[in-house]
Amino acid sequence: MTERSVVRVGLLGCGTVGGSFCELVAAQRSDIESHSGLTLEITAVAVRNLDADRPVARELLTLDARAVATSPDVDVVVETMGGIEPTREIVLSALAAGKPVVTANKELLAHHGAELYAAADTAGVDLLFEASVAAGIPLIRPLRESLAGERISRIMGILNGTTNYILSQMTEHVADYSDALAEAQELGFAEADPTADVEGHDAASKVAILATLAFGQTVTGSDVFTEGIAALTSEDISNAARLGHVIKLLGIVEMCDDDRIAARVHPAMVPTTHPLASVRDSFNAVYVEGAGVDQLMFYGRGAGGYPTAAMMLGDTIDAGLNVLRSTHRPFGVHATAAIRPMNELRSAFYVSLDARDEPGVLAAIASVFGEHGVSIQSMEQLGLGDQARLIFITHEAVEGNVRFTLADLYELDVVKNIGQVIRVVGTT
Amino acid sequence: MTERSVVRVGLLGCGTVGGSFCELVAAQRSDIESHSGLTLEITAVAVRNLDADRPVARELLTLDARAVATSPDVDVVVETMGGIEPTREIVLSALAAGKPVVTANKELLAHHGAELYAAADTAGVDLLFEASVAAGIPLIRPLRESLAGERISRIMGILNGTTNYILSQMTEHVADYSDALAEAQELGFAEADPTADVEGHDAASKVAILATLAFGQTVTGSDVFTEGIAALTSEDISNAARLGHVIKLLGIVEMCDDDRIAARVHPAMVPTTHPLASVRDSFNAVYVEGAGVDQLMFYGRGAGGYPTAAMMLGDTIDAGLNVLRSTHRPFGVHATAAIRPMNELRSAFYVSLDARDEPGVLAAIASVFGEHGVSIQSMEQLGLGDQARLIFITHEAVEGNVRFTLADLYELDVVKNIGQVIRVVGTT
Repeated sequence: MTERSVVRVGLLGCGTVGGSFCELVAAQRSDIESHSGLTLEITAVAVRNLDADRPVARELLTLDARAVATSPDVDVVVETMGGIEPTREIVLSALAAGKPVVTANKELLAHHGAELYAAADTAGVDLLFEASVAAGIPLIRPLRESLAGERISRIMGILNGTTNYILSQMTEHVADYSDALAEAQELGFAEADPTADVEGHDAASKVAILATLAFGQTVTGSDVFTEGIAALTSEDISNAARLGHVIKLLGIVEMCDDDRIAARVHPAMVPTTHPLASVRDSFNAVYVEGAGVDQLMFYGRGAGGYPTAAMMLGDTIDAGLNVLRSTHRPFGVHATAAIRPMNELRSAFYVSLDARDEPGVLAAIASVFGEHGVSIQSMEQLGLGDQARLIFITHEAVEGNVRFTLADLYELDVVKNIGQVIRVVGTT
Repeated sequence: MTERSVVRVGLLGCGTVGGSFCELVAAQRSDIESHSGLTLEITAVAVRNLDADRPVARELLTLDARAVATSPDVDVVVETMGGIEPTREIVLSALAAGKPVVTANKELLAHHGAELYAAADTAGVDLLFEASVAAGIPLIRPLRESLAGERISRIMGILNGTTNYILSQMTEHVADYSDALAEAQELGFAEADPTADVEGHDAASKVAILATLAFGQTVTGSDVFTEGIAALTSEDISNAARLGHVIKLLGIVEMCDDDRIAARVHPAMVPTTHPLASVRDSFNAVYVEGAGVDQLMFYGRGAGGYPTAAMMLGDTIDAGLNVLRSTHRPFGVHATAAIRPMNELRSAFYVSLDARDEPGVLAAIASVFGEHGVSIQSMEQLGLGDQARLIFITHEAVEGNVRFTLADLYELDVVKNIGQVIRVVGTT
């Protein structure tokens, strides 16, 4: 392709990401032309407020997102509005009008991905979303294309920069959760309402997208077991460190032996020698295990206007090239995944509990573990006046059995409190 | 694409990689069909010896690689023969016959890439080579596609597993170079003749491919400055550790301010806090810096039959889908890169030298550095009887000036020996 070809871009939304996208399109114009032969022209920008300052000519602005999505003067639609409605409906109208759509909207894809993928295939156009998971890391295209012939067994990711920043601060500065959160908010790494991040919902959306792509079966956000980080204490983190581990909020997807899929987000103890353990601050990383490739890790910025916009620009160029060649990358038909219930998880567990410090207590507690078939790998006792804090690490056990163990332990008079229960990963 | 479509694969060579490829095609058949709609059929396999045991039906074997490359019964050619000739000529004949080619042949691409890319574009077919750099890591497709809109400033990679294994052993077990090499040979990580690995030539081929893709300008293997690891001592490595660094053999490509490209392979001191520092054993990793994405790292297996074959299988599926859609991913026209000579590199340097331990010696040495405009950041003196070993770390300096400094230092009577000169990276 030596002649220059113009691809007209309609942009929905012009906030941090949309604005960064406009800046990158302008700054990279000549590089994009010389590398790909494409000239990208932003021809319409849908915004909610015409008067705010934007890095794009005033006359391109419109309040009518629906019109941009279906405009005959737009070849590729780039969606940065966010939210589920009316975005879903507008994206569907763009696809139905034969326009490829580039988006980073993880909630939309996690909850309505199957509908959107099918709509793109029906229309014969691309739906590209490289920035939806681990924003600035090229991950979706490697999964969809480079690893198309790979039997992926497990993906474990640090998929949320806010919680990784908080956990890094708690680990490196022995900070409390609340202090680390406040600092993250001050620095702009956490929002005023941090719920979606700290309770794991943001990571769960990304897990649903990864599971669907890795295994070619539809997994939605509500299929993902989700547990956040708010209950973790700095003592849990120092206990983990003493045992050679760090605590990370991981999103995990696994293909089980019985062809069911397991998808979950929870704090996990990771050995310090594992590649994920050294991912600090607000960085994201995704660790992939597969039959052929053995181990892979992708590391980079999980958020931010420019990293997100850079990946959306790559998608836009790809969609533009495909428009000019009248082709697209199909998804194929996805079956709905069979999900393994969390109670069937097999994992090692860290269990911290407080008990009266008197003869026979340990025997009583240990026998409860034993009754449920949960075998103890190590135990540590820390004195606390007339109480003792007991830290157990179990051998691999079934989650449901561990939950019954905990329920029965609560019934014991000598058990005063049960603290964190943290799954241990990365050893097998 | 819901109907199944058969893509016929002609395989050139059936050694470790080719054999693993055949096994993966068989093992992944149903997954590939359900994810991509493609059925891959290996219809011909060119080998040098018809009698060896192969994981493929005997009647598919032939001695005639040229015939496979241009056979009307082949849709995609997968090249695992290696070497430059006759492979180059056979690949060109496949492309000319309108067949996409999948290869992992780094020497071929490093020395004849421009010719091959142009031939693929002329024929309107794909030439895909995901496994040519950091074999099992999806890297080429992210660079070509996801990062198509990114202004990449620098790529630094651990691109050779053999040397990374040797350096890891020297670092973690204070082993000598020759002992670590012997162990690597025993374990099969290093070949009987380790020259291509330890002298950096293997990494240099990969650097040429990365530079060409990252910057869209032709860089060949002979444009890459190359320095190996054989002269490194365990003392250099422990000195580096004391200074908070590890020594890695890095392949580095940079876009300079004047639009020239710098491409080099050499041992480098990397701060222990840098993501590349924790890449151990025979793993590979590629660290990318760019205006939009900030920092990225790709980590995984850099060699091995299955990791290499897994990436070639992804390429084969991609090429197959494009054949069915009668499309391909063009390279565009590449200009020949202007290469910055190594003498113009700006870097900090580690310099180790032995000198007589007497008054005035340090002043004499320091003044030689000063005369060439090389400013010293830190100096450490270790006693060695009547001699002293001096370890200098310079501020950022121009490589040519450091070389003149060393030449003048040799002239000084008081200087008895000049040891390693190691570039320090990753601090800026």
